[in-house]
Amino acid sequence: MYERLKGFRDFYPGEMRARRETIDTLESAAQRYGFREVGTPALERTEMYVDKSGEEIVDELYAFTDQGGRDVAMTPELTPTVARMVVAKQQELSKPIKWYSTRPFWRYEEPQSGRFREFYQTNVDIFGSSEPEADAEVLAVVGDALTDMGLSGEDFEFRVSHRDILSSLLGSFDADVDTKQAIRAVDKSQKVSEAEYHDLLHDAGLSYDQAAQFDDLLQSSEDDLDELVEFGGEDVEAAVTNLRDVLAATEDFGVREFCTVSLTTARGLDYYTGVVFECFDSTGEVGRSVFGGGRYDDLIESFGGQPTPAVGVAPGHSTLPLLLQRAGVWPEEELRTDYYVLTVGDTRDVAADIARELRAEGHTVESDVAGRSFGGQLDYADSINAETVVIVGERDLEEGNVTVKDMDTGDQVQVPVEEFPGAHDEPRYTDFE
Amino acid sequence: MYERLKGFRDFYPGEMRARRETIDTLESAAQRYGFREVGTPALERTEMYVDKSGEEIVDELYAFTDQGGRDVAMTPELTPTVARMVVAKQQELSKPIKWYSTRPFWRYEEPQSGRFREFYQTNVDIFGSSEPEADAEVLAVVGDALTDMGLSGEDFEFRVSHRDILSSLLGSFDADVDTKQAIRAVDKSQKVSEAEYHDLLHDAGLSYDQAAQFDDLLQSSEDDLDELVEFGGEDVEAAVTNLRDVLAATEDFGVREFCTVSLTTARGLDYYTGVVFECFDSTGEVGRSVFGGGRYDDLIESFGGQPTPAVGVAPGHSTLPLLLQRAGVWPEEELRTDYYVLTVGDTRDVAADIARELRAEGHTVESDVAGRSFGGQLDYADSINAETVVIVGERDLEEGNVTVKDMDTGDQVQVPVEEFPGAHDEPRYTDFE
Repeated sequence: MYERLKGFRDFYPGEMRARRETIDTLESAAQRYGFREVGTPALERTEMYVDKSGEEIVDELYAFTDQGGRDVAMTPELTPTVARMVVAKQQELSKPIKWYSTRPFWRYEEPQSGRFREFYQTNVDIFGSSEPEADAEVLAVVGDALTDMGLSGEDFEFRVSHRDILSSLLGSFDADVDTKQAIRAVDKSQKVSEAEYHDLLHDAGLSYDQAAQFDDLLQSSEDDLDELVEFGGEDVEAAVTNLRDVLAATEDFGVREFCTVSLTTARGLDYYTGVVFECFDSTGEVGRSVFGGGRYDDLIESFGGQPTPAVGVAPGHSTLPLLLQRAGVWPEEELRTDYYVLTVGDTRDVAADIARELRAEGHTVESDVAGRSFGGQLDYADSINAETVVIVGERDLEEGNVTVKDMDTGDQVQVPVEEFPGAHDEPRYTDFE
Repeated sequence: MYERLKGFRDFYPGEMRARRETIDTLESAAQRYGFREVGTPALERTEMYVDKSGEEIVDELYAFTDQGGRDVAMTPELTPTVARMVVAKQQELSKPIKWYSTRPFWRYEEPQSGRFREFYQTNVDIFGSSEPEADAEVLAVVGDALTDMGLSGEDFEFRVSHRDILSSLLGSFDADVDTKQAIRAVDKSQKVSEAEYHDLLHDAGLSYDQAAQFDDLLQSSEDDLDELVEFGGEDVEAAVTNLRDVLAATEDFGVREFCTVSLTTARGLDYYTGVVFECFDSTGEVGRSVFGGGRYDDLIESFGGQPTPAVGVAPGHSTLPLLLQRAGVWPEEELRTDYYVLTVGDTRDVAADIARELRAEGHTVESDVAGRSFGGQLDYADSINAETVVIVGERDLEEGNVTVKDMDTGDQVQVPVEEFPGAHDEPRYTDFE
């Protein structure tokens, strides 16, 4: 007997059905906004990640040397891959480029609740627009998807921040600040004590007084943004204006109610620029960010492409279920079957005809493929939650009948075989009782 | 600029749309027969493949040692993984177990037409039935799927064979035959010269006379099966009876017309038992097997499980497109867009409302997110094949109108904004002209 690898998961049909419904809902929202599906490789050259994140990233990757001597890595995220794809066809692709895809990624991390070594994400990205409508459209897609899943504005919030507000504020201090390091400190602020947080800011170049003042500034709500402009001057003003423009667009796009300004939201990855955001469980029961996204205007150029602004979001299918379960809207992990066509005696030909006619209407129809008895077939029909069982018995057939049984009530009725399904698209017990 | 790895592919939206349509059609057929989706890991312990296929398999794998010192391999096929999953829950799963999934697999092979290092398959399997109906249902699923894709019986054939006929015939010779080696020789017979083929059979233990006689026997058509029974006795008879039972079930299941008995079809993998089959292009233009499947009754037990007969098929999304393209039924590799809502001046709020109402009806609707001019937006709408453009202009709006433009004919008409979409589910130019 072989063991599954730690941090990897097998999804059996019940759980998979719930996951598929969630993925379909998310992809359907992206499709309605005109995002197009792309397909991407599971392996890329390791250097793509090292160039972007430094040699230490390799410890978190499933990286190895292939049979041809290439250093390769199982993709830990989609963004570098789609950036590579945009660069490869930047002349022929009409902009804005709007892409989505759902697939697994891999990181060698310690597994914990909602974190696995193999994890699935739906990535939704727009390339080629720096306009606030692009940021807002990405928020609209995930806002629509979450409400389609049954969540309301009481259940979740998008905490929206702006990298340029953070960096401009940092630049206003009389100090030699490592901006990226300081922003990483902000990203960690919710997970460490205040003292540790201030230590991290101090390490990034602020004095402890400045760290406290910076922390204080980041507590500003949307109403206090003008005070930040007063403190930081025109760079902050430009960033605040952009943030307000994005929020105004979310108003028009119908998802403003989900957005809260939260400057302590920073996102961990270095490549973000401009607006960034994270989705949180409003009740706090899911204690971590459910997913996040933001602008990354410089990445395509750093990959050797023409300057191409970009913004995206990547809901993950490890944390999203935690939010949906908390809110009581996780889809039922149960099989659904429209019909089971049960054979008694030598009736396979008639049963198969009925099954084919029902399938032609798009129904899920099972019939015996295992030589089971009457009782065995009925138990199996029950185990797959068949709504209706059609009993095709030799003796019934001699009189030209089949029996239609409602599995919920147990009621059953004899029906002439030529009337089942006959002209009915979806024949049920109640059509014949 | 980074390069994609050799043998791996990027799928841009046009090609991806055609692939997704094909995958959806195949999965939909499996769903209608009550197959349930499962989700499976991309990595497994390398020993699972080595135990099954010998140490030499490692050369064909993306195998490596992970950060935790485990020998792991990127899955080259699904069957061992689903066998592991069946064994892990064999008590609680109600049988027959009917599973499907579509995902990539990886093999370190030389890329060629229709063969890649990363390739996608839809696996469809039944566990827990040795009945001929199970073999026939698997053939029915792929038969239905191929006709749903627009193919007819003129386009393809399922060449059906039986491992036990081959092994029983081999056992009838007065020789010490390595059955697996001889069957591998049969599998290669179409790819090598007759002399080379007979050499391979000789290597497996047959004399050259016996090899010629065996080759001759395998040329038997369905009508000659009784002669095989005369030659081989009761073991051959049992296998022939099983093959006939499966064909009779395909008759009831509506896919008999696609099946041809072809004993030279052997399938390369050692774990097959019983009925095996391969799908071929009837015209021969696609010179290789499009996909195949068959019984593997002993695998679950060899994985440490209870004896559990199994049968499956795995259409691959590298070769299937070759058949569909040859037959002229490959889906169009074009984007489809129902509406583009074009903004002129400060009309974003009204345009966004219209877009949201159209999306609520399930339509694919794009609008400007890139601050484009009138002409730029129209060009973009054209590039995404928008069927209808709704022009929301400041001046028109002052008079309470929008303009609805049919992109195919170029015809356009002014419509009161409250009537668009108004009560229309799918408003088009022709509704207002």
